Amino acid sequence: MRFISRTSSDGVTERFFTLDEVPGVLWTPEDASGTRPLILLGHGGGQRKTAPATVAHARRFAAAGFAVVAIDAPNHGDRPKSEEFGRIAAELRAGMAAGRSPGALVAGMHGHLAGQAVADWRAVLTAVQRLDQVGTGPVGYCGMSMGCGLGIPLIAAEPRIRAAVLGLLGVHGLAEDAARITVPVRFLVQWDDRLVRRDESLALFDALASAEKTLHANPGDHGDVPSFEADDAVGFFTRHLS
Amino acid sequence: MRFISRTSSDGVTERFFTLDEVPGVLWTPEDASGTRPLILLGHGGGQRKTAPATVAHARRFAAAGFAVVAIDAPNHGDRPKSEEFGRIAAELRAGMAAGRSPGALVAGMHGHLAGQAVADWRAVLTAVQRLDQVGTGPVGYCGMSMGCGLGIPLIAAEPRIRAAVLGLLGVHGLAEDAARITVPVRFLVQWDDRLVRRDESLALFDALASAEKTLHANPGDHGDVPSFEADDAVGFFTRHLS
Repeated sequence: MRFISRTSSDGVTERFFTLDEVPGVLWTPEDASGTRPLILLGHGGGQRKTAPATVAHARRFAAAGFAVVAIDAPNHGDRPKSEEFGRIAAELRAGMAAGRSPGALVAGMHGHLAGQAVADWRAVLTAVQRLDQVGTGPVGYCGMSMGCGLGIPLIAAEPRIRAAVLGLLGVHGLAEDAARITVPVRFLVQWDDRLVRRDESLALFDALASAEKTLHANPGDHGDVPSFEADDAVGFFTRHLS
Repeated sequence: MRFISRTSSDGVTERFFTLDEVPGVLWTPEDASGTRPLILLGHGGGQRKTAPATVAHARRFAAAGFAVVAIDAPNHGDRPKSEEFGRIAAELRAGMAAGRSPGALVAGMHGHLAGQAVADWRAVLTAVQRLDQVGTGPVGYCGMSMGCGLGIPLIAAEPRIRAAVLGLLGVHGLAEDAARITVPVRFLVQWDDRLVRRDESLALFDALASAEKTLHANPGDHGDVPSFEADDAVGFFTRHLS
């Protein structure tokens, strides 16, 4: 794990790093030392580890005492794009332009990325927990849309993750992994989402095997999650990871 | 307004009172003085102002600094039962025993009680806000099931109510009043509710005209709302009334 830069502002320290080929960012409370709960933050499709929504969530969590890590997903942000990814992305755009239902198209894209994404996250989790200011405390995962699509196979495979905030995605391709998830989940739905069908979204919520799972639905389109949900997520992770 | 008893425990003072024919309870932080936000708490059908769930909510809100008031609904608790109410209640029980859909039956009962309930609440709100330890601060309403069915006409009629936690009820008989509600609402749904159909529940959420409204759905039957929703409600009212 190689650290590239370190800056602090508003009580939060932000460190850019790479682990092998994976570029990431670690946020901690300024002057943090000792073990603390860690949140893995997955960004949306076509976005990157420093997308505004990701950074806002990260700083909000870090201000509440958590360590937070985000990485660029395969073929996203500062990572090289493969020819095959380019072909799948072009098919997705063409399919959507032709009016095909996005559910299956998006699931195909996530399925292509998931194997690498899960391996990346597991390696980053191990490396980050070796740092003094993180340590091996409880771990949560937070990701919407593609962050949910790559998060569900990760959580299904990774017993270190103990709670998750997910959402903005339908059930396509995820039912089996969702049925292996038993940790507490908060699941966000945008009630007027033009990218994700409501019934497919509710079906993904239904597929989760967690005894404690809460659906939070708010009016508005895919990108309109109200900011108070980030505060609610702090409360959720505090309850389950502290 | 006549106070009957006053006891304090765990930092919360509980006062029983009557206002004309309406028996009620007021909870405040112990030694409270000065204006504070007030929460009106509506109990469920067949229950009373001192139902365990109502008292638990009230003490949780009062511990967070709110004044809280609950009253017996018409024909409930310590209030006399009319012959007409007895007839409607018997019809409701017989209809449900005969397998009729509860939605319309329950709506008929709530419709019978709503006019009196709204008048009771408005008088109690005025009287309680004249007390030193309450004052004319912002007001919220919290009620599930029948507490929602009587709360929706109240909130539609009462501009002093600025935020509400509602739920566990379907749209029957309530669409018009719901469409007049514009304050922020949190709406609770039990995902496996055997008394309230899921689609009727979602239709009541949809009918609310509020720009800010969030649906919280949890697994389980009508009575299985998880206790963390009470903590979340404290956060919601703090955000909107403080």
